[in-house]
Amino acid sequence: MSADETNLAMESGASARRTASRIQRIAYQGEPGAYSEAAIFEHFGADQQAVPCRTFDEVFSVVVSKKCDLGLVPIENSLAGSIHRNYDLLLQNPLEVIGEHNLHVRHCLIARPGVKLGEIKKVISHPQALAQCEVYLRDLPGVAVEQVYDTAGSVKMVRDLDERDTAAIASRRAAQIYGMEILAEHIEDNPANFTRFLVISRQPVDPGKDAKTSIVFSLRNQPGSLFKAMSVFALRDIDLTKIESRPLAGKPWEYFFYIDFIGSIHEQKVERALAHLEEYALFMRVLGSYPRHVA
Amino acid sequence: MSADETNLAMESGASARRTASRIQRIAYQGEPGAYSEAAIFEHFGADQQAVPCRTFDEVFSVVVSKKCDLGLVPIENSLAGSIHRNYDLLLQNPLEVIGEHNLHVRHCLIARPGVKLGEIKKVISHPQALAQCEVYLRDLPGVAVEQVYDTAGSVKMVRDLDERDTAAIASRRAAQIYGMEILAEHIEDNPANFTRFLVISRQPVDPGKDAKTSIVFSLRNQPGSLFKAMSVFALRDIDLTKIESRPLAGKPWEYFFYIDFIGSIHEQKVERALAHLEEYALFMRVLGSYPRHVA
Repeated sequence: MSADETNLAMESGASARRTASRIQRIAYQGEPGAYSEAAIFEHFGADQQAVPCRTFDEVFSVVVSKKCDLGLVPIENSLAGSIHRNYDLLLQNPLEVIGEHNLHVRHCLIARPGVKLGEIKKVISHPQALAQCEVYLRDLPGVAVEQVYDTAGSVKMVRDLDERDTAAIASRRAAQIYGMEILAEHIEDNPANFTRFLVISRQPVDPGKDAKTSIVFSLRNQPGSLFKAMSVFALRDIDLTKIESRPLAGKPWEYFFYIDFIGSIHEQKVERALAHLEEYALFMRVLGSYPRHVA
Repeated sequence: MSADETNLAMESGASARRTASRIQRIAYQGEPGAYSEAAIFEHFGADQQAVPCRTFDEVFSVVVSKKCDLGLVPIENSLAGSIHRNYDLLLQNPLEVIGEHNLHVRHCLIARPGVKLGEIKKVISHPQALAQCEVYLRDLPGVAVEQVYDTAGSVKMVRDLDERDTAAIASRRAAQIYGMEILAEHIEDNPANFTRFLVISRQPVDPGKDAKTSIVFSLRNQPGSLFKAMSVFALRDIDLTKIESRPLAGKPWEYFFYIDFIGSIHEQKVERALAHLEEYALFMRVLGSYPRHVA
């Protein structure tokens, strides 16, 4: 990038962040108090209007239909892995990825006010949250676990149930929202528990200087085809941060490949790499080029 | 491979298949009538003793503890994608992959005897089976869907419930086992619906002439590292059939990579490729080299 291009990119990057200071309607999956809602407030500021949706499909559809300005969906957790439904939905919807946010996930054990830890006989939460607290739960004697659809939703259930012996696993904020009490904090087995979220929009942004780009493509089913596709990045020293494959429906054992890399589509080497990839690819789409989240 | 090596491999391949003709205890996840059970009978013959387990973890553990001779677990569906828990369990357990089986999954709508399609108000099944019949279900007027833990288990529930208006989605065999009736067959939206299963054992087999090999490795978190790792196969014309990544717990955004390729660990070019990969990899393990399933 020339010095002028760099300045332009920096200004545009700053203006993209400024845009976020007006109040926007931002859709997320889950109940109030969900980790996705926390990611919205951390990323955009606490004055935004976070709009709860029942499913990931609904998050995409309310952005497409303009009921919301933006959506924020989890794409990957550093312990549990990728959230595949959202990879599929990125491909199926005409939206742009305009941002990413890494949230440090810290789980609490939450019960009705006045309940003591020794009274708990059942713990409910989303299967991933239960799995992430497996060692902690194993050490609670005589406690059964039960999967429910949502972390914050499990706290709502504890409030609405008349059973003092049931606790939920969710965020600190979920306990506050539903007026419940925290029995234990940081109960996750591995403290390096991060979820990466993507921000989706109808319009692209200028990704600025420190950018990441997400693409999806398919290839001829030939020996060496993925290696060739990856060479367009390696030969230009473009750093790949993630590769994911999803089945190509109707063609068993063929795949869509999703790649994230460091760089903006406005950089010449990235433009050239993508033009080069299009020489091999049967299909290629840029899902978005956006400011990289630096903690 | 020399002519002698080829003969040896063919003989060993044949003897590996013969071994399967004695009755073995083979563990699978699910209830009798599950697609995993069908895969066992298709792969090994109907005289085998299929042992139902509650979870995938249990399938691995009964093979490790010698309660069963072998296990069979789904690793990937051609519509829904990878079954990640089983990738993690392959890494965590000291077992060998000794075979693969591709099962054509055909769903039936199943109800209590005498019930007519028009009476059905609710359809229950495993979330993946429901998703694979989404278009069919949408065309059934006024029918609600509900997720349960298992396909064959949903048929058992239809039998045990006293509700005539509930149907299950599962295999033809599940209907027979629980004495229920098939209301509709081939109700999947996409007929190219295959699940690939892996056979796990305490002992490796000779993979024979037409083999596949599964490996897992981790790499230094450096630009171009995955490209270099893949080059050891590409430079030797070794055909990769699958790449999967799973999070490396405790190191956010670093991964274990799982690769399947055509070829046996007894072929010289494969031996050389793996030795070459070990020059780069922080960790590498061969999960198994096994006869390829040819439909």
